[in-house]
Amino acid sequence: MIIIGEKINGSIPSMAKAIAARDEAWIKDIAKQEADAGADYIDCCASVDEGEVETLKWMIDLIQSVTDTPISVDSPNANVCVEAMKFCNKPGMINSVSGEGDKMDVVFPVIADTKWDVMALLCDDTGIPKTAADRIRVLENIMAKAKEYGIAENRIHIDPLVEMLCTAEDGIAMVVEVMTYIKKNYPKVHISGAISNISFNLPYRKIVNLAFAVLAMNAGMDSAVMDPLNRDLRGAIYATEALLGEDDFCMEYISAFREGIFGPVQQ
Amino acid sequence: MIIIGEKINGSIPSMAKAIAARDEAWIKDIAKQEADAGADYIDCCASVDEGEVETLKWMIDLIQSVTDTPISVDSPNANVCVEAMKFCNKPGMINSVSGEGDKMDVVFPVIADTKWDVMALLCDDTGIPKTAADRIRVLENIMAKAKEYGIAENRIHIDPLVEMLCTAEDGIAMVVEVMTYIKKNYPKVHISGAISNISFNLPYRKIVNLAFAVLAMNAGMDSAVMDPLNRDLRGAIYATEALLGEDDFCMEYISAFREGIFGPVQQ
Repeated sequence: MIIIGEKINGSIPSMAKAIAARDEAWIKDIAKQEADAGADYIDCCASVDEGEVETLKWMIDLIQSVTDTPISVDSPNANVCVEAMKFCNKPGMINSVSGEGDKMDVVFPVIADTKWDVMALLCDDTGIPKTAADRIRVLENIMAKAKEYGIAENRIHIDPLVEMLCTAEDGIAMVVEVMTYIKKNYPKVHISGAISNISFNLPYRKIVNLAFAVLAMNAGMDSAVMDPLNRDLRGAIYATEALLGEDDFCMEYISAFREGIFGPVQQ
Repeated sequence: MIIIGEKINGSIPSMAKAIAARDEAWIKDIAKQEADAGADYIDCCASVDEGEVETLKWMIDLIQSVTDTPISVDSPNANVCVEAMKFCNKPGMINSVSGEGDKMDVVFPVIADTKWDVMALLCDDTGIPKTAADRIRVLENIMAKAKEYGIAENRIHIDPLVEMLCTAEDGIAMVVEVMTYIKKNYPKVHISGAISNISFNLPYRKIVNLAFAVLAMNAGMDSAVMDPLNRDLRGAIYATEALLGEDDFCMEYISAFREGIFGPVQQ
């Protein structure tokens, strides 16, 4: 599982406050915690109304002052992403493109001949499609465009857009159908998503997130925007890899437990 | 999910001690806790070397003194099961038969014209089959014999025999294959099993049990021998039902949370 640490995001109130106050220690501390917990990328989203590129530069510099973990440069504005990626010391991830507007034409040529990965959301100018068939149509457009620019499938993370369970009538059947399609037709593409979106407006969100992660992995998810410090979620991911036959004799599960990634906190 | 409360079992050391000491209060307390937590059956297993029927009678009477929840009469000896079921005030479950010896011929005629359910394990005189095909062969023998005695499919709980993950080379692929076969070919049969068997010899068993429960439910499990007081497991089961589209708008999940079945313990 490729873990994209979600905690440095200005849409989280405590982080927004730290960004507004230019609290360097706070951001460095969270970046270090995520890196130490084994995040594969540190997501970095400013979520500010003005000066987004400058704010991202300040945040990226802080993250890079404490860790070498690659950065996921996160903005809904593709032009901001391609500006801010220049501040990174090494290739990371652009988060995100989609079928909307000219996002792919802005990002794909810039990353074409690099080692950058990209997160692509299955929505377009019509919004978030309601059916699996329509999301697959967006997927095919994204894959065609990526092929045009020569971006290898294994550099693409597809977020099928997990929506909140509390308003769903058929559970996650639709998103599982999309994931199953991706896994079958583009086996090298990473299937990703923000795990905690599933549990909006529900009580005891952690258990919904955890059960969703297990089912999503069963459907092919191998990348996730999540809190790498969520110990039970980390444990469930290791357990699911073993249950799905991807961890012979549970060696990885047992090692992760011994390293203290999950399980009771040692005092 | 049909929950068969597993705690009154003489193979658990603390329960063995209570049985040996004829500690009535202990057994009544556990039976009441399991019933209050919403168990559909209270499993009752003596696990003693001598006087098993008498011990079961004493235990069954204690359980029935505190709850009306049906009892799962649990013994590896089919003759003991059919003797002990007579002490029950209402139909429950026989736990268990299998393809071994004459177990089915002992139990099936006795329960044929009753409302008793039965747990059937997919093993026979050759032991526990190593392949899905061989377990399915045992299943077909059990289903044929049940049909012969006119036992309806919805009274049969099949335990495909979950084995410990730590010695598995391909995760739970084989048992999932068996479950998928049962669900497809005998949609009214309940797919069951002892959830915690999966995590023997692994650290932090609870997270393995939980991830397994989610995957097993995805494959069709709708009955389980488990601890009904395991709050996170209960929550994960409700969450999984919602994720699998069996709980519109999460109404059951939310109700169960409000009833305190899972979530933080209220002081």
